[in-house]
Amino acid sequence: MLIVKKFGGTSVANKERIFNVARRCIEDYQAGHDVVVVLSAMGKYTDELIDMAKDINELPPKREMDMLFTIGEQMSVALMAMAMNKLGVPAISLNAFQVAMHSTSVYGNARLKRIDSERIRHELEARKIVIVTGFQGINKYDDYTTLGRGGSDTTAVALAAALHADKCEIYTDVDGVYTADPRKVPNARKLDAVTYDEMLELATLGAGVLHNRSVELAKKYGVRMVVRSSLNTSEGTVVRGGSKMEKMLVSGVAGDADTARVAIVGLKDEPGVAFKVFNALAKHNINIDMILQSVGRKGTKDISFTTNEESAEEAVKVINENFSDFESIDVDKKVAKVSIVGAGMQSNAGVAAKMFEALYDSNINIRMISTSEIRVTVLIDEDKMERAMGAVHDKFALGE
Amino acid sequence: MLIVKKFGGTSVANKERIFNVARRCIEDYQAGHDVVVVLSAMGKYTDELIDMAKDINELPPKREMDMLFTIGEQMSVALMAMAMNKLGVPAISLNAFQVAMHSTSVYGNARLKRIDSERIRHELEARKIVIVTGFQGINKYDDYTTLGRGGSDTTAVALAAALHADKCEIYTDVDGVYTADPRKVPNARKLDAVTYDEMLELATLGAGVLHNRSVELAKKYGVRMVVRSSLNTSEGTVVRGGSKMEKMLVSGVAGDADTARVAIVGLKDEPGVAFKVFNALAKHNINIDMILQSVGRKGTKDISFTTNEESAEEAVKVINENFSDFESIDVDKKVAKVSIVGAGMQSNAGVAAKMFEALYDSNINIRMISTSEIRVTVLIDEDKMERAMGAVHDKFALGE
Repeated sequence: MLIVKKFGGTSVANKERIFNVARRCIEDYQAGHDVVVVLSAMGKYTDELIDMAKDINELPPKREMDMLFTIGEQMSVALMAMAMNKLGVPAISLNAFQVAMHSTSVYGNARLKRIDSERIRHELEARKIVIVTGFQGINKYDDYTTLGRGGSDTTAVALAAALHADKCEIYTDVDGVYTADPRKVPNARKLDAVTYDEMLELATLGAGVLHNRSVELAKKYGVRMVVRSSLNTSEGTVVRGGSKMEKMLVSGVAGDADTARVAIVGLKDEPGVAFKVFNALAKHNINIDMILQSVGRKGTKDISFTTNEESAEEAVKVINENFSDFESIDVDKKVAKVSIVGAGMQSNAGVAAKMFEALYDSNINIRMISTSEIRVTVLIDEDKMERAMGAVHDKFALGE
Repeated sequence: MLIVKKFGGTSVANKERIFNVARRCIEDYQAGHDVVVVLSAMGKYTDELIDMAKDINELPPKREMDMLFTIGEQMSVALMAMAMNKLGVPAISLNAFQVAMHSTSVYGNARLKRIDSERIRHELEARKIVIVTGFQGINKYDDYTTLGRGGSDTTAVALAAALHADKCEIYTDVDGVYTADPRKVPNARKLDAVTYDEMLELATLGAGVLHNRSVELAKKYGVRMVVRSSLNTSEGTVVRGGSKMEKMLVSGVAGDADTARVAIVGLKDEPGVAFKVFNALAKHNINIDMILQSVGRKGTKDISFTTNEESAEEAVKVINENFSDFESIDVDKKVAKVSIVGAGMQSNAGVAAKMFEALYDSNINIRMISTSEIRVTVLIDEDKMERAMGAVHDKFALGE
């Protein structure tokens, strides 16, 4: 079997953890598998590099910032190779140039375009564990790029796709994907498997242990992902294709308290108003989540939308700067989103109704509703979020 | 003019010094010159990396050690580019892959074979200051190598040769090359120019501000080197070709107290004895300096040689393990070498005699003598080294 294993910064933060990771990889190697390891920079090292740069130049050129960033992963992979060597196993570290990992040109937020697999295959054939720098690529100018948030997950999936790996294991500090956040819903249960689409919805809803881009890539190339803990040997959760799994309607409940509702009241009711509002917000890179448009009094329109709390004030500023033809605008940060996700609900009516019933039984008022084919999200008062999650979790018997 | 400027680790050890170097480079840039800067790792960062590695593996694979080392220079060049950008000047950092700097395969002690100048020329044409990582290369396997001691000087000279630079400035913490160490000979005088050969002899004698390999390379390609201080703007010393300079017989006096004499007494007088002794020492990488062979009592041979103090005990160990057929072996660490160097002495008889006279006048006993075409070295008691240097310096009127 060819296995790609990805470990994040906390997993390689110190000597003890580096050896811990080394031993886990060596287990697979000694079982006869080919092992490719993807690593992030150690602990908070990337933050240290940012501080170092900002001390020299508050607005460092992004090209040079990426040149600086990439040393973090190179440090991790070299030290890991030394640790494996110390444990008597041949290992070799490779950076983005050596692999090579071709990316788009955008510094700080590049996307991988193509990975040469020749060098890695050559080293695997020599029975070495191959350790690759995550998060980085090289662009057409032969410059380093970095892949943005969650970049090392993306590196791992892209490598798994290029090498036709049998699986891509993403190691985190949780045991896998749960039916709900165990800190909020005590009887939450770990799932054995979720579909790519479910995982994507969960990631978007703030319950994500994986970054969206890596899951999208895995879906595109059919890479079998496994989310598992670096702290224990439990099996984790498989993320894979297919529409119905375990015959479950709903696979998980997610809550997100970092939500604010912005309401614009009394907009003129004429064509293009909504377009103009959301176009202005998009130009300022404000991510909008749920949208509700309703008819107001006196033939006007009311538009409400949700965004994260940090963006809410800026959204209000953008609206006030670009529009004057409305009655009032207000922000409510004391709201939260609760969502159910499940590939099974595509072909099952009544799932949304069942969720609403659970909330009604618990006397929780629903303020907005948004749905996709495999997701139902409601906006409720923030202080009722955990209670709502528990009620919905019980209603669908997810803990059983 | 195209100028290559090399700054060592202490010159970029902190923010203030990085900006100091940036400003010096910008002066040349703004005067209309093309500027290529070669940097070492910041301050003691390479030592920190060694500690980090040894903590994981006392004997780390050299290939991985080089992978780790190279991040040091990459950090320096990225931060320098940010500093120049902050000062409003376009700059770009390049590592060994980006240049590319092709080297031999030996990890930890590679030699540069070929430098592609295309990328650097392209960036210079775009009127950028180009900042290159010193000390590193890439070998035929596409792996990082490092160039060993003095490696960044070698990088600078090799770049100057490849780019046909007008000069290669090596910045150090001294003003240039002196007729003797100013801490030992108070009236020592800074030289305006020395030949490559003189510089090579001086470097070998422990008076070197430049590493031998860089001077050899400069000689081979006729690169005009300038040794100057990063702390002031004094002109420094030019290192260039030609045999006679300033019509001086002797250009400098060097002393080296880190010397030990090993004497093997009563070896069998048969062919090949000396070969066997020095072959055994060479196999253990013990560098031998002066050698004296004399006829001992009863038809035996005595062989004395000098090495640095650290190697002396190991040399004794090697001799005792490989030979038994001699009377005694002893080590004397209380000795020092004093040398005169000068391209002029090639064609002038009597230079050595003049040096011996100076020592005789000062009542200093000579224990061994060794000469090359442009150098005379004597071994004397260590406690008389500074007095000997002063006497010789005065005899040749080097301070005038």
